[in-house]
Amino acid sequence: MKGSKLECVKCGGDFPLDLVNARCQDCDEPLEVRYDLESVPRDWFKTPRKGPFFERYAPFYSYLDTNSALSLGEGQTSLIRSNRIKGKIGIKELFFKNETQNPTWTFKDRGTALSLQNAFSLGYRRIGTLSSGNMGASVAAFGSRAGMDTFILLKANTPREKIDALAIYGVKAIRVSGNYGDVYNRTSEMGKLFDVYFSISDEPMRVEGYKSLAFETYEQMDCKPPDYVALPVGSGGLCRGVLKGFEELHEVGFIDRVPIFIGVQTQGCSPTVDAYEKGKDRIEPFKDPLTLDHVLENPYPPSGNQVIRKIRSNGGVLLKVSNEEILDAELLLAEEGIFAQPASATALAGIIRCAEKGLIPGDARVVTVVTGSGLKYPPVLEKFGLSPISTSLDQLAHTLETLIK
Amino acid sequence: MKGSKLECVKCGGDFPLDLVNARCQDCDEPLEVRYDLESVPRDWFKTPRKGPFFERYAPFYSYLDTNSALSLGEGQTSLIRSNRIKGKIGIKELFFKNETQNPTWTFKDRGTALSLQNAFSLGYRRIGTLSSGNMGASVAAFGSRAGMDTFILLKANTPREKIDALAIYGVKAIRVSGNYGDVYNRTSEMGKLFDVYFSISDEPMRVEGYKSLAFETYEQMDCKPPDYVALPVGSGGLCRGVLKGFEELHEVGFIDRVPIFIGVQTQGCSPTVDAYEKGKDRIEPFKDPLTLDHVLENPYPPSGNQVIRKIRSNGGVLLKVSNEEILDAELLLAEEGIFAQPASATALAGIIRCAEKGLIPGDARVVTVVTGSGLKYPPVLEKFGLSPISTSLDQLAHTLETLIK
Repeated sequence: MKGSKLECVKCGGDFPLDLVNARCQDCDEPLEVRYDLESVPRDWFKTPRKGPFFERYAPFYSYLDTNSALSLGEGQTSLIRSNRIKGKIGIKELFFKNETQNPTWTFKDRGTALSLQNAFSLGYRRIGTLSSGNMGASVAAFGSRAGMDTFILLKANTPREKIDALAIYGVKAIRVSGNYGDVYNRTSEMGKLFDVYFSISDEPMRVEGYKSLAFETYEQMDCKPPDYVALPVGSGGLCRGVLKGFEELHEVGFIDRVPIFIGVQTQGCSPTVDAYEKGKDRIEPFKDPLTLDHVLENPYPPSGNQVIRKIRSNGGVLLKVSNEEILDAELLLAEEGIFAQPASATALAGIIRCAEKGLIPGDARVVTVVTGSGLKYPPVLEKFGLSPISTSLDQLAHTLETLIK
Repeated sequence: MKGSKLECVKCGGDFPLDLVNARCQDCDEPLEVRYDLESVPRDWFKTPRKGPFFERYAPFYSYLDTNSALSLGEGQTSLIRSNRIKGKIGIKELFFKNETQNPTWTFKDRGTALSLQNAFSLGYRRIGTLSSGNMGASVAAFGSRAGMDTFILLKANTPREKIDALAIYGVKAIRVSGNYGDVYNRTSEMGKLFDVYFSISDEPMRVEGYKSLAFETYEQMDCKPPDYVALPVGSGGLCRGVLKGFEELHEVGFIDRVPIFIGVQTQGCSPTVDAYEKGKDRIEPFKDPLTLDHVLENPYPPSGNQVIRKIRSNGGVLLKVSNEEILDAELLLAEEGIFAQPASATALAGIIRCAEKGLIPGDARVVTVVTGSGLKYPPVLEKFGLSPISTSLDQLAHTLETLIK
């Protein structure tokens, strides 16, 4: 569409919308989609709509030719109101955006869906990513659905169970030895060389996919924005996307203020928070990262600098939490009936810390993004060590009586 | 609501609607909800609605006082149109109802949600089930959300990983040694003794929850019913529920015919199919059941006889498939981007068999219910044994070239 383009998030330099596998070489920063927001109808949210998010929010994706046959029913996840734990935390209204209900059970599917739409409309027949975890599974599923040749680059030490979870889709999996950051940078070159659309974490369409989470949340909250949005920060793509969604709602005039963002990392890998806390503009690679479920274990997040800039201008906060706080938060989520992976519980741990410090007023309406299913990383369950009581059929009544009294 | 009742599925005997933990003692058969369908507005499906299924389809649940705060966003799963495999199978239109997008990633959540609504409205503060698998996790999640004391009875030999998946919710787990059927029958007595609402597989409200799957499918197909519905048959509750949903749509006049049902079991546990094929009315316990993911491993399904009666009067078919057919079907589902657990792929395997035998006409519109997430049982993934290629950063281009050529 006329006037649509990619723009460097730092210098504002222009790039064509159909440029793929690229960052701004001057700034070494990611690119972002700019398009005409003027044409968004002011009454768009008055009518409930069906279909994939790029159809339900079509005016916010007007720059793209889309094909609903490639959708896997991504998005349209539940917004669950806290019943039990908001009181414990001291927050009036707390909501969980349950992204575990996506087709591969993490938020990544929103980004993958839009990358795939773009890849398909540009004529690509090969798609790929660099990930041993949730993003790999997501790209594998969507690539398979579209009948594309799918390439998943993996770290050399990727464990067996992560590879097994990709196996079902019939992808080409490649373990690449060497520094993760170097491999990341090399995907751009490989993509150009072999016509592979690499949907990596700072790919502009991935951010565009994530912004749909803001639109859905806004709709589910009866077209009133939340006061705060808390989310885990790994590569930074999710944070950038959801914030862009609310900023676009604000720019068009649907909301009169953008929610305050709370971005949370774990102490085991906090490059973005560390730079933010030191007042720096650029992140440094984090040495020897180690986290509970490895989802947030990107030592040098490609959107890190941009997340710092955006959170500062948003008036939000970046903070890190400990493994103990994360596991406590995971248990609290389960009290509400939501079984999240540890990385997802990081956001709730951040909310709890902010509430304790008085950074969130008691009457605030807070949304936390539950990014992925607890089934994604079962080993952590052993930490909760449930021990069932053994009994016989004859003794069952007695056992129940003991448990009830 | 006046005129609402429970009814024995065999003798038609009446029971009060608030009776819990009971079957018809004369017939040893399950009970089913009967209520006034006359009051269902004829234009109900004209307006798109929001909220839990018991609100979206409120007239079909008019007998129940419901509370949306206890919902976990169950239902509202995607109906995905087959792109790639319908041609291979020789079917014109094939749809996947993707129940893996439920809050605990299986269809069980629909049944649990309604059991919980009933338990809550009847004043119960304790809920339970007998299951080491998907139903246990579902009841644990909903029980936790409602703040109920939750009791999960397990088989004595339940493996560690199944228990771990319940641990997060803080339930009371009890391993009970003894015959599974005996334990099943004992839950009724225990429920009455200790005021525990046991939401076991033939609980009437569970069937009522499953019927929402029919309503959603009907809506998602633009208010035209499919010609065939295929689903896995374990305990039989899902089959009874979805069929009841379409029958109610038919009775009210929304559809002019009920879809033909294809119920599928695995050769490793086929008590219902075996009785059906022998022309019998009553199932016999299946000896030494062994299935791929244990989900369909109920040797003496409590709704087995009723499934046989219903499939016969529906003009449908019950059949069993082999493990090889199931794994082939699981790979086909993955080609469409859906990662199902083996039990879910059983339904597609049944469709393939029926299509090969000419039991499904080429122009039929077929829906298959994908009952649960592939993440629920990772060990089976090893059967697909993907072997990633190892390479170095320097050799990456060469490796990609080899794979592409």
